[in-house]
Amino acid sequence: MSKAKQLRDRMAERGLVHIMAAHSPLSAVLAEEAGFDGIWASGFELSALYGLPDMSLISMTQHLDMLRAIAGRSSLPIVADIDTGYGNAINVIHAISEYERAGASAVVIEDKTFPKVTSLAAGGRQELLRVEEFQGKIEAAISTRTDPNFLVIARTEALIAGLGEEEALKRAAAYEAAGADMILIHSKQKTPEEVESFVRAWSGKAPIVIVPTAYPEMNEERIKALGRIAIVIYGNHAIRASVTAMKDVFARILKDRGIHNVNRDIVSVEEVFRLQRMDQVKANEEHFLE
Amino acid sequence: MSKAKQLRDRMAERGLVHIMAAHSPLSAVLAEEAGFDGIWASGFELSALYGLPDMSLISMTQHLDMLRAIAGRSSLPIVADIDTGYGNAINVIHAISEYERAGASAVVIEDKTFPKVTSLAAGGRQELLRVEEFQGKIEAAISTRTDPNFLVIARTEALIAGLGEEEALKRAAAYEAAGADMILIHSKQKTPEEVESFVRAWSGKAPIVIVPTAYPEMNEERIKALGRIAIVIYGNHAIRASVTAMKDVFARILKDRGIHNVNRDIVSVEEVFRLQRMDQVKANEEHFLE
Amino acid sequence: MSKAKQLRDRMAERGLVHIMAAHSPLSAVLAEEAGFDGIWASGFELSALYGLPDMSLISMTQHLDMLRAIAGRSSLPIVADIDTGYGNAINVIHAISEYERAGASAVVIEDKTFPKVTSLAAGGRQELLRVEEFQGKIEAAISTRTDPNFLVIARTEALIAGLGEEEALKRAAAYEAAGADMILIHSKQKTPEEVESFVRAWSGKAPIVIVPTAYPEMNEERIKALGRIAIVIYGNHAIRASVTAMKDVFARILKDRGIHNVNRDIVSVEEVFRLQRMDQVKANEEHFLE
Amino acid sequence: MSKAKQLRDRMAERGLVHIMAAHSPLSAVLAEEAGFDGIWASGFELSALYGLPDMSLISMTQHLDMLRAIAGRSSLPIVADIDTGYGNAINVIHAISEYERAGASAVVIEDKTFPKVTSLAAGGRQELLRVEEFQGKIEAAISTRTDPNFLVIARTEALIAGLGEEEALKRAAAYEAAGADMILIHSKQKTPEEVESFVRAWSGKAPIVIVPTAYPEMNEERIKALGRIAIVIYGNHAIRASVTAMKDVFARILKDRGIHNVNRDIVSVEEVFRLQRMDQVKANEEHFLE
Repeated sequence: MSKAKQLRDRMAERGLVHIMAAHSPLSAVLAEEAGFDGIWASGFELSALYGLPDMSLISMTQHLDMLRAIAGRSSLPIVADIDTGYGNAINVIHAISEYERAGASAVVIEDKTFPKVTSLAAGGRQELLRVEEFQGKIEAAISTRTDPNFLVIARTEALIAGLGEEEALKRAAAYEAAGADMILIHSKQKTPEEVESFVRAWSGKAPIVIVPTAYPEMNEERIKALGRIAIVIYGNHAIRASVTAMKDVFARILKDRGIHNVNRDIVSVEEVFRLQRMDQVKANEEHFLE
Repeated sequence: MSKAKQLRDRMAERGLVHIMAAHSPLSAVLAEEAGFDGIWASGFELSALYGLPDMSLISMTQHLDMLRAIAGRSSLPIVADIDTGYGNAINVIHAISEYERAGASAVVIEDKTFPKVTSLAAGGRQELLRVEEFQGKIEAAISTRTDPNFLVIARTEALIAGLGEEEALKRAAAYEAAGADMILIHSKQKTPEEVESFVRAWSGKAPIVIVPTAYPEMNEERIKALGRIAIVIYGNHAIRASVTAMKDVFARILKDRGIHNVNRDIVSVEEVFRLQRMDQVKANEEHFLE
Repeated sequence: MSKAKQLRDRMAERGLVHIMAAHSPLSAVLAEEAGFDGIWASGFELSALYGLPDMSLISMTQHLDMLRAIAGRSSLPIVADIDTGYGNAINVIHAISEYERAGASAVVIEDKTFPKVTSLAAGGRQELLRVEEFQGKIEAAISTRTDPNFLVIARTEALIAGLGEEEALKRAAAYEAAGADMILIHSKQKTPEEVESFVRAWSGKAPIVIVPTAYPEMNEERIKALGRIAIVIYGNHAIRASVTAMKDVFARILKDRGIHNVNRDIVSVEEVFRLQRMDQVKANEEHFLE
Repeated sequence: MSKAKQLRDRMAERGLVHIMAAHSPLSAVLAEEAGFDGIWASGFELSALYGLPDMSLISMTQHLDMLRAIAGRSSLPIVADIDTGYGNAINVIHAISEYERAGASAVVIEDKTFPKVTSLAAGGRQELLRVEEFQGKIEAAISTRTDPNFLVIARTEALIAGLGEEEALKRAAAYEAAGADMILIHSKQKTPEEVESFVRAWSGKAPIVIVPTAYPEMNEERIKALGRIAIVIYGNHAIRASVTAMKDVFARILKDRGIHNVNRDIVSVEEVFRLQRMDQVKANEEHFLE
């Protein structure tokens, strides 16, 4: 059974699945051990890992390489964040083929124009693609996947672009009509109301995906009360946790003039060995090194 | 002035420099902001990031790609951990050329045989290279570097292999004779005595490098009291800090059934934007997007 | 002296330099031995090597990796074909920084919109970027280069887009005003007249670059008679030569039911060893393997 | 049906299959069009493409990247040349897992020690691995593959190391006993007699693979007369054909002072478009670009 099928089955069974951002196989392994249902191969986290702004500077090659490495170490299904699909429908066809081969179970494609610009700089630039053009991209994705369970998730930026709920609903319906399996509704409001209103008004069949980074009060209780939402993605907490800890530990080592104190407050080297599966190496050495 | 020259100057000026392990440009940027003098492009940390045991599974290509990305984001000199140099002297020649081009200021080469085996599995396998063969590798490295300030650091595993201080001293002297700029003496004792004894007995001119992971009580005070040590490398605290924080945050999100609590305890998204230099993107957008 | 300076000096000295497309270090080494003045790190050739259409499917990472490998093996200056610069001015800034670090001496940026579409499919799609927006990209490139000799070459597709010579001249002048060091004028006419007319009408100071693939009658004699052209790029003859030969040899092996005949008509294995510098390996083995 | 199964079926059906070396997706596409049965993802050809000696300088990452790209463009089964398996049995386990994921249908592992040295330089260095250690590597490979049809081919260098036919037969039998699916017998004699004698003396069940580069008179007729040989690999004719053609075309362009002559003797740009599948791009543009 493909991992994409597993992800669909788990959604059917539980109603809501929890997906954690990862920027590396290590963070994916930790997310799996913690109990998450899937991995978000986040463009933001990978950009941040590379110290680069999330402005389409990380290439598809770099993203695929990391996703493939994650797929080699974690058994969880992976949802790939492919931004706008690296260009038009022709680029989407190439991307879907590569992401499926690399081990992704789903992709999220968004309806922005390429290249990205920051919200602040943009006068009227934060434009969305014409609906018909984005439908073509979804159709291209659907027609390229070889596993029918592979999920094509359409993400609309209509609310963020300030186009209002009606436009967001219209676009979501058009994307579903083009074949999208799910709709990701994105919002940068500091509270959940904007997204909640969209979810209540949504009359399509496609389940909804949310990324509540900006409105952290949208917890599981509130999500379940709403219904319709099948996936919640925690979009950047792995990298933010890592930054928090490295800042603290780095500062303390310099202040303490040594590692004698921090050594007690971080996981042991043996714990890292465990995550690297050194026990399996030792078993293999005993078995195969003659 | 090359970064390798900067590193040599700083050692001359301060006596002791502090170098922090990094597994990514992000961790390197944080180490630079904290005030470290250089970056340790650690094979152990990169293996751990990829969820792989540190058994020569990460390729030179993967290590170079990450080192090059670090060099693109941090202005600190980078000391590259190249294990055994990926083979014999011919491989070392190729490696030195590639690492110098990628932006490294120094390499550490160790006198183990390739491939690695774990200490536990090895009956008599944890062997060291013949002294003459390792001297050939050092000579090959020295003759390949194009920047005479590029540092070739010879690491001896003699103490870890259980061969005793006399053998370690003999090897260190032979490596210095072959041209090594510095000697890294490695120990897995839980206390500093073994390394301290070596340092006191060392009569060569080459300064010493240590990695006190196993013996964290070896702090700056104790290092300076000894003298002769010019570099201390903090070998894996970046990745151990990250693991500690991700484990905690991942568990709390599932326990809390949402991000409403952890959101307060980790750095903000804006702080990540700052590390990604979003301010510079915005300035560039204003200047160059017409 | 930087290779970019060498390229400028050679143009000054000879008036016209000859640059050959390469898709690999091997083809670059052969071009250098043949006597060309520089390497064209061609997007078309690299796409073809990967069996992919030249539609922005090859990533910047893949192009940089190959260019870097070429720079490691050939001493010739490299002119990088960066298409539209992988996005807007923000992407151009990132690209220039990466290409300069990878060893390029020049880049060619073209004034098309991204993503590419084929000429045939395009109704009115083969649009060019607004002049001001492309000027912003050139200014971004100029302000990013660290070596002032690094060449920023602006390529206009105005003739190919059917906009006529007047528009082409207007754009070339605007790009020169924005700081472009040279102008690449592109044409798909089967004869040189269109390009010759442009060159005669050009009143700017920036020298001209041509790629006479479509109009092979434009040989050196004719180019020198015109004047103003400082670089001629042979855009895809390395890959076309390779395809021609592989088709022939592959068919003959199957027809002959063996390699006994083709073996006489292709270079020997020893000639490949020579290109791989096996003599240097042997000398290094004698010197450094003890 | 997996491609590995296809390869086994074709061997069963035809007795002998013909496999052509490729260094790129383009050369693989040409080999498939010509009618070969499979692709040899050759370490020698890839090293040559990168202008590097075939001395374990190309990393597993670089080889996997090219193999994966080939698998994305050609429907032929791919036999991967993995040299010694990048280290010991632990490295082999990692390699088999990665090569199978990348799309290989078979691997060839050889019984040399790592790192390689050239035949000439080696006094007594061209040593082979102990039989038991190489058996451990084969067992590790067999136990790692997930597709039971994936072929593990053991290559013995006993004849090349000058150890004689008896040693070669003893090793081949030991490797078969360890689970090897096929035996590759390598020879550098200029005539086929050495290999023919080995094949006649071979009493094992595992079919034989040969690479007749050094003894080109070993054509299909002679192979079939012998029997027992199921795969013939043409090891480096793609790159040698390419070198031959590029040398000729490059020299002629400089001599002719233009491309007006060579243009008639190499395939057209349109033929390259065909190999890049531009027709499919145009069909997709009509279908999906709205």
